[in-house]
Amino acid sequence: MASEKQDIPPVLERLTNAMDSGAFAQVRRMLNRGLPAQDVAHLLESSPPKERDLLWNLIEPEFQGEVLQHLVDDIQAIYLKRMKPEEFLTATEGLETDDIADLLQQLPDTLIQEVLVSMDTQDRHRVESVLSYPEDTAGGLMNTDTITVRPDITLDVVMRYLRRHESLPDSTDSVLVVSRGDHFIGMLPIIRLLVSDPNITVREVMDTDTIVIPADMPDNEVANLFEKFDLISAPVVDDQGTLLGRITIDDVVDVIREDADHSLMSMAGLDEDEDTFSPILLTARRRAVWLGINLLTAFLASAVIGLFDATIEKVVALAVLMPIVASMGGIAGSQTLTVVIRGMALGHISSSNTPWLLNREFIVGLINGVVWALVVAGVAILWFDDVKLGAIIGTAIIINLLIAVLAGAALPLMLKWMKIDPALAGSVLLTTVTDVIGFLAFLGLATAFYL
Amino acid sequence: MASEKQDIPPVLERLTNAMDSGAFAQVRRMLNRGLPAQDVAHLLESSPPKERDLLWNLIEPEFQGEVLQHLVDDIQAIYLKRMKPEEFLTATEGLETDDIADLLQQLPDTLIQEVLVSMDTQDRHRVESVLSYPEDTAGGLMNTDTITVRPDITLDVVMRYLRRHESLPDSTDSVLVVSRGDHFIGMLPIIRLLVSDPNITVREVMDTDTIVIPADMPDNEVANLFEKFDLISAPVVDDQGTLLGRITIDDVVDVIREDADHSLMSMAGLDEDEDTFSPILLTARRRAVWLGINLLTAFLASAVIGLFDATIEKVVALAVLMPIVASMGGIAGSQTLTVVIRGMALGHISSSNTPWLLNREFIVGLINGVVWALVVAGVAILWFDDVKLGAIIGTAIIINLLIAVLAGAALPLMLKWMKIDPALAGSVLLTTVTDVIGFLAFLGLATAFYL
Repeated sequence: MASEKQDIPPVLERLTNAMDSGAFAQVRRMLNRGLPAQDVAHLLESSPPKERDLLWNLIEPEFQGEVLQHLVDDIQAIYLKRMKPEEFLTATEGLETDDIADLLQQLPDTLIQEVLVSMDTQDRHRVESVLSYPEDTAGGLMNTDTITVRPDITLDVVMRYLRRHESLPDSTDSVLVVSRGDHFIGMLPIIRLLVSDPNITVREVMDTDTIVIPADMPDNEVANLFEKFDLISAPVVDDQGTLLGRITIDDVVDVIREDADHSLMSMAGLDEDEDTFSPILLTARRRAVWLGINLLTAFLASAVIGLFDATIEKVVALAVLMPIVASMGGIAGSQTLTVVIRGMALGHISSSNTPWLLNREFIVGLINGVVWALVVAGVAILWFDDVKLGAIIGTAIIINLLIAVLAGAALPLMLKWMKIDPALAGSVLLTTVTDVIGFLAFLGLATAFYL
Repeated sequence: MASEKQDIPPVLERLTNAMDSGAFAQVRRMLNRGLPAQDVAHLLESSPPKERDLLWNLIEPEFQGEVLQHLVDDIQAIYLKRMKPEEFLTATEGLETDDIADLLQQLPDTLIQEVLVSMDTQDRHRVESVLSYPEDTAGGLMNTDTITVRPDITLDVVMRYLRRHESLPDSTDSVLVVSRGDHFIGMLPIIRLLVSDPNITVREVMDTDTIVIPADMPDNEVANLFEKFDLISAPVVDDQGTLLGRITIDDVVDVIREDADHSLMSMAGLDEDEDTFSPILLTARRRAVWLGINLLTAFLASAVIGLFDATIEKVVALAVLMPIVASMGGIAGSQTLTVVIRGMALGHISSSNTPWLLNREFIVGLINGVVWALVVAGVAILWFDDVKLGAIIGTAIIINLLIAVLAGAALPLMLKWMKIDPALAGSVLLTTVTDVIGFLAFLGLATAFYL
């Protein structure tokens, strides 16, 4: 099966061929019986909108929910919007509570209510309990399919209780131990259950110092805990310590992937939920916003240059060299910015080590400023046969690199404090700083020395 | 315990205070008994080099291995280099095979041999089997601590066999079923073992169509499989289908995090193994390389501007506006670049959908080119009272945006085909294209119409 996975592009090609030749029966068979839901979702994500719609319509209604839960939000939203409440119920029958809640959250509020009232009481109760927490918290991530036992029974009783189930929920690595009031007490790892004396009680072998996750913990903190402690599942509790559900590693992996995607995409003003093959007009509109914001930065830089037009008219070499000053500052600043944003995401940066970090960036900026100032000055002197020009551009590069690395380190910290996403706003603000300071330093110094 | 995790910065502060006041006994106690190895590693990663060395020296030798395996490569390397073979053995006693192999790989070859000969035969054999595969393949990621059974025994026998163990390896969610020659046959999930009739045989309940991972599969493909199929562990086999070991989700989570980190860091010319608090000289040297490469790009752009110095001397407004053309191209191109690099990482992009993608990017580039060309042209006309200038900059922006989005889409595809990392080389090459084309189009058109 593993080798089959690597064959996805050929499968896509076979599907495309089958669709091109109108062999829809064959395509339908491949989609509904031939491939796991994850692969069908991957095929949809890898298809341009028109082909995607054709494929989607060939998927059987009962299978659509499973496929939906593996799709990126953007595409989920498209197909969910086309569903009637009863179609939603058919599609999501058999999904896990947290996955149903995830999909539901994409629907308009009135539709959510319609779907909820058509569910049976137990399911509705479960889904509502997940829906009552924001999507990006532990509560929104949890599942309610816990296996719970009391602490005073023997392991033999636990084994017999488990055996009464037809099957156990996926990723069940522990039995959760609760009091009479569903208060969480501890965990009994299944691998310990298997090796322990059946006659001792749960209390004697359970772990009580395990990771317990409050329902309102942000999902990225949950992910850090799972990553740090190699967890497979963890219990979720409310303020009173009542067990609400559990979070499993498969959902956490999605959080980790999305968080990482978020940093990467945000730095280019993009959204991590974005569909790779999103349609032309939607794509153009989304990207236009970012271009517009950056245009303001560019105009600001132009305005700075405009202040010195008399100088440039006199020494046209300034116009030739000025992009170098701005660009070196931009690169140096964005390196620092990336290191700090990543350090913040990993939880490395706190008030106690920020001074050290700022100091290091300052010295690194100074060293690289001096080194590259000498190189650029040398080239400028040889190129334009003008020592003064070399001295001016060298000085400007040192100034701009110093400001750039300090801005690269300070901006994300300030933005985080102002509760603005540093990955999104950091790069635009940084470019503004490095362009403005770069042109100001270079052309300002030139004006002082040439005019 | 969960709330304790969120307290890491305060712990760091308490530690810093304790160290400042010379209360080393207290620090030593916190490091060796008070905190789990993951938190100690996190503290080290969050500490500047000098504090880090102080902390490290307070960690007991037997605990150092556990801490080491949770550190980023950069820092691991520093402390491993200082260890003698016998210290390495003391530190890594009790670690899992794959973790020992990971650490060993950071040592020079002569030291690896020294360590291996001091190990007992069984351990050496296991570590050597992992070491024989590259670090970034399934073989390098696997663990040899599998629990295996034969297919013809009953579940009751399996249960009794398990009970003979004192404990089972972490993340054991399945018993692996093998033939007499250790040939992999299937998997028996433990949660199924718990709910099935003890008198039936393994063969009757085992899964045979599970994911089986060849030892030479690249680690990012392994991660995709785990992510797609929500795996907790998977068997690793050689060419002949002989079971070599298993990969567990905790190691895969690290791969996912590193891969994501790699894309983010590479785009700024940084390494994902980098220590946030790496020392000044090392940091300066690493960053200098990237600045140097980008300087070549900047000089190329300057050379292009230099071709048109006569035109700029005549119309100094060109110097004022020219960064706008280059910058808009850079932004539009980097958005496309990011989408395509991510699409490639997610496996969305293949030869069958590339034409659609290039076509969409072209049209999106055209739409945004025209929209923003009109805006910039309008501003230019109002600012400099020169309609010709507006027409020239508008046209240049359209040209540059079109080239930028096509380059943003095509460059990563070409680089991948040439086996060069697109995340690393893509952004520099793209900037080169958008700067050169931007200045060439704008100043070239201006020369044609003004001179």
